[in-house]
Amino acid sequence: MNRHIGVFDSGVGGLTVVKQLLESYPHESIVYFGDTARIPYGDKSPETIIRYSIENAKLLLKKNIKMLVVACNTASAYALKPLKSFDIPVVGVIEPGAKKAVEVTRNGRIAVLGTRGTIQSGEYQKTIHRLLPSVMIQAIACPLFVPLVEEHFFNHPATRLIVQEYLAPIKKEKVDTVLLGCTHYPFLRAILEEEMGPHVTIVDSASTCADEVGMILKQNQIEASKDCIGSHQYFVSDDPEKFKRLSLNLLGQTLSVSLEMPLS
Amino acid sequence: MNRHIGVFDSGVGGLTVVKQLLESYPHESIVYFGDTARIPYGDKSPETIIRYSIENAKLLLKKNIKMLVVACNTASAYALKPLKSFDIPVVGVIEPGAKKAVEVTRNGRIAVLGTRGTIQSGEYQKTIHRLLPSVMIQAIACPLFVPLVEEHFFNHPATRLIVQEYLAPIKKEKVDTVLLGCTHYPFLRAILEEEMGPHVTIVDSASTCADEVGMILKQNQIEASKDCIGSHQYFVSDDPEKFKRLSLNLLGQTLSVSLEMPLS
Repeated sequence: MNRHIGVFDSGVGGLTVVKQLLESYPHESIVYFGDTARIPYGDKSPETIIRYSIENAKLLLKKNIKMLVVACNTASAYALKPLKSFDIPVVGVIEPGAKKAVEVTRNGRIAVLGTRGTIQSGEYQKTIHRLLPSVMIQAIACPLFVPLVEEHFFNHPATRLIVQEYLAPIKKEKVDTVLLGCTHYPFLRAILEEEMGPHVTIVDSASTCADEVGMILKQNQIEASKDCIGSHQYFVSDDPEKFKRLSLNLLGQTLSVSLEMPLS
Repeated sequence: MNRHIGVFDSGVGGLTVVKQLLESYPHESIVYFGDTARIPYGDKSPETIIRYSIENAKLLLKKNIKMLVVACNTASAYALKPLKSFDIPVVGVIEPGAKKAVEVTRNGRIAVLGTRGTIQSGEYQKTIHRLLPSVMIQAIACPLFVPLVEEHFFNHPATRLIVQEYLAPIKKEKVDTVLLGCTHYPFLRAILEEEMGPHVTIVDSASTCADEVGMILKQNQIEASKDCIGSHQYFVSDDPEKFKRLSLNLLGQTLSVSLEMPLS
């Protein structure tokens, strides 16, 4: 079926999900929207996050998408239900991330790191509990991780101090799995692994989310033919040049990015 | 004259200017707008900052203000000219901040700290040069200061490391005056003073901005009568409760804050 998969995020972070989709489904076409004019979402109110998410979805629906992927954890946490009122399948990153954490844990002790919004929503905690009722979950808001990543402070001594402070309660609880509940956090994977030690597995939702997308395409019989070559379009609400530079780091290729405003 | 002074900022930071206005002109009425649904402005493009600033100004103009104060440094840097097309006096924080730095310096070596947007605009540098052509200016973007302040990391070891890193080039240049070109930065004054040492004066634009407001009110003969008691209204585009909590820290009083959307 020759329509695009729509993906949105508050910024560039959702490209971690796109990267996985490109690898797994090279024949699928993707249209991506990064709401860079209103980034970040992580500290804003549920009402505002829902409004922005609906506006972003409308922009993508106008482009005749066949499926919507909410690649932002905070938007997935608050807006998935309202977005499901649209007439296409919708996938977020919470359920895939939770599934992966539950698969990986051996001792049933899982930590979730996320923005304040994502953690306060309780969605990860609820979903993990549903999948593994006996689980012990520690959910930690790490609001400084996004700005540190944006500033490329991936391995800075200040980042290490902040990581140590955020992770201190987790270390006491002997968790064996740390779920990165924000698309920015994989950039801090090395420092998080060093601080948590070799007995702890760090997981993120990008690959599981791509698996779920594949399953839903199949279930709904809306897969692209295997002889298609995917076309990929990228839109942002502010500063396409900055997005281009950041995406080069992430995807290793220069994207063609256009400016477009979300629809209210 | 019984109309309000309008003040806007991307968030809560502009209350440092309001605080000064309240102290200096208790009979003036003020209406404040914090664009908390789209904060921060510091990393966004000039076009987006101008668009947001005009929308914020329109919201305040609908409330029949007699004068507009742009209490956000990034908005002052980019949007002051377009805002001056409106039919009321407009004051930003760049010119007052620059004036104060020039008054205070003894050796003509000034550092300016600001968001990436403010520093890249070059407005502080241009204005200070105009006032004191022989000056040596070092302008440093400090993009992590706003999130550190938002997280109340005022005196954290990680903040100190980041301050040391940002200030290192200044220390070499023997500046005697550091201008805080962002309304969030006064929260880091103590740590900045410690790091710069006793021979360096830290200045911000809040008090000079209030002086300029007073002068313009007088020049335009639009001062409130001395027998008025100022009325003060506060609006934000997201999460009035969070704004209330933050403003309590800043102003020492609980404000009545309402939700309102900027006009496009």
